[in-house]
Order: sequence, then C-alpha cells, then structure tokens
Amino acid sequence: MVDINKIRVNLPIEKIPTHWLNILPDLPEKCPPLLFPQTMLPAPFEVVTRIFPVECVKQEVAQEPLIEIPKELREAFVQLQRPTPLQRAISFERAIGLKGDDIKIYYKREDVSPTGSHKSNTALVQAYYAKKQGLKGLITETGAGQWGSALSLGCATMGLECTVYMCRGSYQQKPGRRVLMEIYGSKVHASPSPETQIGKGFFDKDQNHPGSLGIAISEALEHAMRDDKYRYSLGSVVNFVLLHQTVVGQEALEQMKMLKEYPDVVIGSIGGGSNFFGCASPFIKAKLKKEHPNTDIIMVEPTAAPKMTKGKYAWDFGDAVGAGPVAKMYTLGHSFVPSPIHAGGLRYHGSSPIVSILNKNKVIRTVARSQTEVIKAGVLWCKTEGILPAPETCHPIFEAMNQALEAKRKGEKKVILFNHSGHGFFDIQAYTEYLSGSLVDYELPDEEIEASLATLPTVDESKF
Amino acid sequence: MVDINKIRVNLPIEKIPTHWLNILPDLPEKCPPLLFPQTMLPAPFEVVTRIFPVECVKQEVAQEPLIEIPKELREAFVQLQRPTPLQRAISFERAIGLKGDDIKIYYKREDVSPTGSHKSNTALVQAYYAKKQGLKGLITETGAGQWGSALSLGCATMGLECTVYMCRGSYQQKPGRRVLMEIYGSKVHASPSPETQIGKGFFDKDQNHPGSLGIAISEALEHAMRDDKYRYSLGSVVNFVLLHQTVVGQEALEQMKMLKEYPDVVIGSIGGGSNFFGCASPFIKAKLKKEHPNTDIIMVEPTAAPKMTKGKYAWDFGDAVGAGPVAKMYTLGHSFVPSPIHAGGLRYHGSSPIVSILNKNKVIRTVARSQTEVIKAGVLWCKTEGILPAPETCHPIFEAMNQALEAKRKGEKKVILFNHSGHGFFDIQAYTEYLSGSLVDYELPDEEIEASLATLPTVDESKF
Repeated sequence: MVDINKIRVNLPIEKIPTHWLNILPDLPEKCPPLLFPQTMLPAPFEVVTRIFPVECVKQEVAQEPLIEIPKELREAFVQLQRPTPLQRAISFERAIGLKGDDIKIYYKREDVSPTGSHKSNTALVQAYYAKKQGLKGLITETGAGQWGSALSLGCATMGLECTVYMCRGSYQQKPGRRVLMEIYGSKVHASPSPETQIGKGFFDKDQNHPGSLGIAISEALEHAMRDDKYRYSLGSVVNFVLLHQTVVGQEALEQMKMLKEYPDVVIGSIGGGSNFFGCASPFIKAKLKKEHPNTDIIMVEPTAAPKMTKGKYAWDFGDAVGAGPVAKMYTLGHSFVPSPIHAGGLRYHGSSPIVSILNKNKVIRTVARSQTEVIKAGVLWCKTEGILPAPETCHPIFEAMNQALEAKRKGEKKVILFNHSGHGFFDIQAYTEYLSGSLVDYELPDEEIEASLATLPTVDESKF
Repeated sequence: MVDINKIRVNLPIEKIPTHWLNILPDLPEKCPPLLFPQTMLPAPFEVVTRIFPVECVKQEVAQEPLIEIPKELREAFVQLQRPTPLQRAISFERAIGLKGDDIKIYYKREDVSPTGSHKSNTALVQAYYAKKQGLKGLITETGAGQWGSALSLGCATMGLECTVYMCRGSYQQKPGRRVLMEIYGSKVHASPSPETQIGKGFFDKDQNHPGSLGIAISEALEHAMRDDKYRYSLGSVVNFVLLHQTVVGQEALEQMKMLKEYPDVVIGSIGGGSNFFGCASPFIKAKLKKEHPNTDIIMVEPTAAPKMTKGKYAWDFGDAVGAGPVAKMYTLGHSFVPSPIHAGGLRYHGSSPIVSILNKNKVIRTVARSQTEVIKAGVLWCKTEGILPAPETCHPIFEAMNQALEAKRKGEKKVILFNHSGHGFFDIQAYTEYLSGSLVDYELPDEEIEASLATLPTVDESKF
C-alpha cells in the first residue's frame, strides 16, 4: 500500500508563485542579444517593441533575479488550472520493474491546462501585457496548433483579437486544434495564405502548398507589422517566454518540498526550450549557485532534429526565410528541413539562447532519442498512468525510464522529475501508426546537417 | 478582484470519500428489481451473477446507507485524478452579465480523468471486483467510446482483459477513442461483428452495417455468457453504477462546505442517469431527509431523446433486441431510434430505475433542451472558462445559464452547481458543424414515440 498523499500533490492554491524566476543574472556567461536581420547588429529597443509587447521586451533583458507576477494574472492562472498537480508514476514504476522507494519518478502535469499543454503559461501573460499596453490583438503562427490554441485562449481571456497562421497541412488534416482556436474566437488562416505578400508568393504558385513553420512565422510577422495596434507573439525560444514558464518549476520545487524530496535528475523535451526550462529552472538556479551542484539536468531531443547533439552553437535566423530576429544558439541551420515526426513541437531548427549557454557550459546536457522508442514508452505510460501523452512528452517519459533502469542496474537510489508537458488527444495518428506497426524512424545523413549549417549568416560581434 | 481560493477548490487528497452513498434505503418507494427477460420475473441471484461481478450484484440491492470503498480502490482513484476540482465559473458568469456574488455557478470537473469523463468512477470499481473474484476479463459495448475507454483503463489498471463492441459507425469515423482503448490493451470489435451469433446475423447481410448500441449490448452479453471466467460490464442505468458515482457528489458537498456554500440548484445531464445522480446524490439524500427540502434538482435531457418528459414510467428492456434485463423506468420504448445528435451518451431510450422513482415522486425534475441551444452555450463556455465541453456536458451548462439568468431577472440570490461530466476533445465534429452553421435540431413527431411505446413488454407484478 502506498500513502495516497504521496501519489499526487496539489499545491495549495494560495501558494501559486508570486514571481517569475529570472536566470539571466545567474548565467555562466552573458546572454547575447537578439540581432536585427537587416543590420546584423543588436536590435534597437524601438524595433523589438514594434514586434513584441513592450513589457515582454523589457523582460527579455531584465537583470532582477525575481520579477513580480501581476495579481490579475495569478487570478487567470488559477482559472486555467494553475497550480498543476505533481504526481508520482507509481503504476509506471511497477510496470518497468521498480519496487519500493529507492527509485521514484515524479511528473508535473502541464497537460491539465484547458488547451492541453504548458503553452498557456506564456500565452496568457503575453495577452495580458498586450491588453495593458492598449493593443488590439496578437498575431502568431502555429504548426499543429498547440501554441496557436494556447494564444487563442490567452487572447479570449484578456479580450484581444487573435490571428493565427497555421501550416496548411495541419489546417486540413488535423482540424481539432483549428476548431478549438476558432471557438476561442481566433481568425485562423491556412499558410501560405493570400493574406500576406510573403504568403501570396507561395500561394499563387500552389494553392495546396502544405506550408512550413518558417513561412507561417514570416506571414505572422508581416501581418503584425501592418498596424501599430497589433504585435507578434512567440511561443518559445526567447528569454521572456522561458521566464514565464518558470512558474512550472517553482511549483514543482514546492511540491517536492511537501514530499521532503529533491530531484537527482530533472528531464524535459527540447523544441525551442521553454517547456524544459520552465520545469528545470529552479533546479538549474540551485545548481549554478552550488546549493545542489550535482543535479543531472537532461534535455531530450528527437534524433530527427538533433540541434543540441549534432548542431552548432552559432548565430542564426529564428525563422526559415531570414526575416525574423537573429539569435546565438545551438542550431541545425535555418534552412534545415526536419522529417515529419509526430512531435511537431520538437522539429524547430534552433533553441533558446538561455538553454544554449547552459548546455555549452555543461550545466545541463542533451540526449537524442528516436521516434519509435519514445512512442513505445508513451504507450506503456498510457497503459499504466492512464494519460495519453503528447509525442513531445513521450521523450522525457522514455528518458525517465532509461534513467530509472540504469539506477536500478547500478543499485543506486534516485529521484527523477520530468515535465509532462502535454496530452496527446489531438495526436492520435502517431499512436495509430505505432499500433499498426507503420511508425518509422527517419535517417538523418550528416551531409544534410552540413549543408544546412553552411547557410548560417555571418555576424561580426566586434561591431556590437 | 476575486479571492483565488474561491475560484477553484481542491479537496485535500486524504479527504477522498471512504464510502459510497446508498440511496436505496431512502427512496420514497421501493426500487423494483431487474427482471429476467425469458420469465419476466425478478432475475434470480445466480442469473444476475452470471452477468455481472458478484460484488456488484450485491450492491445492486444493498440496504446499508453507506458502503465502504476498499483502500486499494481509493489508491487507484487518486492515481486517476480523484478528488477532482470544484470550480466557480467566474468568466462565464461575467460573460452572461452576472456581477458580484448574488448568483454563483460552480462546476465539478469530472473531465479531468485520464479518459476525460466521469465513466472511470465505476469502470475502475467493476474491474476491481472482477479481479477480486478471480475473473479473467470484462466485456462491454460502447457507442462513441467514452464508456469503452473508461472500462479499458479500468481493466488495464487492475490487470484484466477487456473486450469492447463498438458501433461500426463510430469505429470507422471516430478513431480517437478506439485507438485509446487499443493502447490500454483492449480488443475492440466493430459491431455488428462476425464474433457473435447475434452480430453475425447482421454482419453477413451487410458488412458495412453502422451498428447500434442495442446490437452492441446484445453482442457483449452473448460474448460474456460464453465463458464463466468473463462478465459483462455496464456503464450506467443499474443501481450499482449509480452507487459508484456518488463519490462525485460527496466530494462536491465537502468542497461546497469549504466555501461555506450549499447549492440552491443542482444540475446534470441525463442519459442512463449515472453522471447526474453521482453529483446530485448527497443533495437528493438531504432533500429526502428534509435537511434541505427546497433544493431544485434538475436533469437535462435532449429534445431528441425525451424519455423523462415525453416517455412513460413502465417496464422495458434495457437493450434494443429484448435479450437483456428488464427494468422499471422512464422509457421511450426499447425500439426507439434516436436521431444522430452529437451527445451520444444521452441517446439511450431508458433511464435508471433510481432516478425514475425520484422523478416520478417529484424529488427531482427534468427539462428537455435542443442540440443547437446547448452547443451554443458550450461554445460560450469554452470561450470563457477555456474548457471544450463534451456535447453531453453542454446540456447542464445551458441550463445553469438559464437558471442564473432567471434568478437575475427575479432579483434572487442563487448558488448553482452542475456536473461538468466530460471534455469534448473527441467531439470536434459537433463544434465544426456549429461554426459552419450546419448544426441541426431534429423534429421528433409524437407518433414516433407512440409507436415505440406500443412495443413495451407486458409484466404482471402480482407474480413476483
């Protein structure tokens, strides 16, 4: 018998975090700025504030270790399911052969948000600041719709307009999240669309063009630039998005304290870096401050988009066509075209500057895992813990299992924590393929990475 | 500003109910027994225990006011998200024009279970008792898959085999929940199937027969009868299922106490009756005991299947072909063929004997609402509370709005509670139709009900 109070821990609602945790002052080296693509120089404040809400731009470079969360936002967080539960994976542990309490796997339930992922943690905040600034709306892009649906809900909650450019492939084949966005009141365009100059170029040649995240980003940026009452919104990569996600880790830390635990291993999947960082942030901070110097903090990336393990730490464009800001990060090159793995959120060519610095300085580390092995772990997870995980979430599930079994082989005690970033109710296709034996892994020839890396822009840092 | 502790209430995990609430000793009249269809006499214990797990059969007629929940089950409940949160619909209230605290709408979040509905509350219990009895597995039917996926998870959790007969129409067009059942390890057959005598009759004539719940029930029953190591499992209607659902209402009562509230109105949708009764049970009990004699307890049924408002209180078959047990209940006649509304869980021709007695004795009452008005309310709900509700759940949402606006017109204070029975992530089609303006209501001619009611079986109660 297990003590039921140790299976799931609800943080008391009044203990919802009051501040975001800013890692910038603690980084082992200074975080490089975003560059303006036309000049390849640090983007001036007035340029960046034309792209993002002004408060977000301030947070992008803030140096205070803690940044206060406005009260109205905390109220909205509670309505939309914060604090989220922390659970122990009792049934999964048993199924992989663990017994007793020597090795424990905990997971943070970011899937319980109304749109089913961690994305609402920043969507709500960006919409809040946009509203405060007197803007009319936000424009963004989305692949399969995780981010687009989160921003749509954020805008609906704050009373803002929302326009989403959604890759046509997903728009047509995965109507679930598109319909959700429309219910929230968003205008959703299949991208490439005739709505923008950039989109029209592609659309006029092929009205069935399946689209790409790169094109959709470019369309959203162009649209946002048309009218000063609108701004562009981004769901990962940049510092302020990572900042907003730190509520996840702070709650997890408090919940671990309630259990009198501290994790030996912290795991998350890496696409842009925000879900991983959000959960890991307080543990990274404690490691940097030598309070807990030995925590093993692991990012899991797909072998189909191995930016951290096979990419380069370099300046690169954030979007695919070279119209957006340039960042210093681990990248596979902005012209990298990832294979169509189901974990759409992990296919991005680059990664957040913050996690890039941490990875380069070995504060955190990265492993690459294949689609078939992680989905297989996700199936076992669903069968035991009951929750259908998003394909992205299958990555830390697999790695948590890996770490647990390794500890068991070595006879070590271990407390493992991972971010259960989202549910898979809209990702049934991945599981259908797994069950029918048609799920595949994709070979990624080194030459393909080399060719893409050859397109990196040239930046002269001495000019900054 | 709202006190964040009054937006969502998490019951402390150790306060998960220890007993189920048995309404049978409190009913205004004795609950009639289930009849054996071959004899039209009360089904003998040894017949009913060949159909259902023996402990469930005992609970079907138990007279103790409280029945203890085994500790292992409470552990499993915690793993699978009990206690569920109680929330106040702050944003929805504001959107429909309510201000301040005179009128409050609370909802119980049964959608947070891993399969997305209240169904797991009994699925887990039936699987537990089947396992304890030494059985190998459970067999059931499902329409769109809510019940089938819950039982699949219940069986996976308890280590039992599970076979599900799923209407072929849903099997082919709504693969989401079928895949979920298969991940949980269930064997899912499109019904009518060549697996059973009854199914084969239909299947041989038309291999694309879309199926019906009636045929699927008959197939599941036939399959369960083949081998004494298996039993049939039912997701609503019978007394023991309603008993298992009383955890919902007991938690809601405790959560209301934490808020120092007691509901004036309690609302739920009615299909078989178990989600409604589960949430309403302690309030019904308090009304029967005259502790709270004035609580207005409302069932909402679809106008497309108006068994409570236009049906008859009579003996009728539980299945469509007259092979299953006969119950005394409000019914439209077992040959009633409901229109294809999206709230598949509310299309059943009959209702639980318990809620039938309560309705007949005016302890509770019923209103019938149309598909378009309830889905419209669901869209507003999603836009404000963020959660995409199941079409079934749109019914109490609409009625809560109705009750709130009526109270506002009359200048009354009112505390409204309803059971938010499930999410709609697998019901996107209903919303797609709403958004495109193609969602329809169905006319139900009185003659159709009359014709169906003419097929009721004859029962001589004096022979019991």
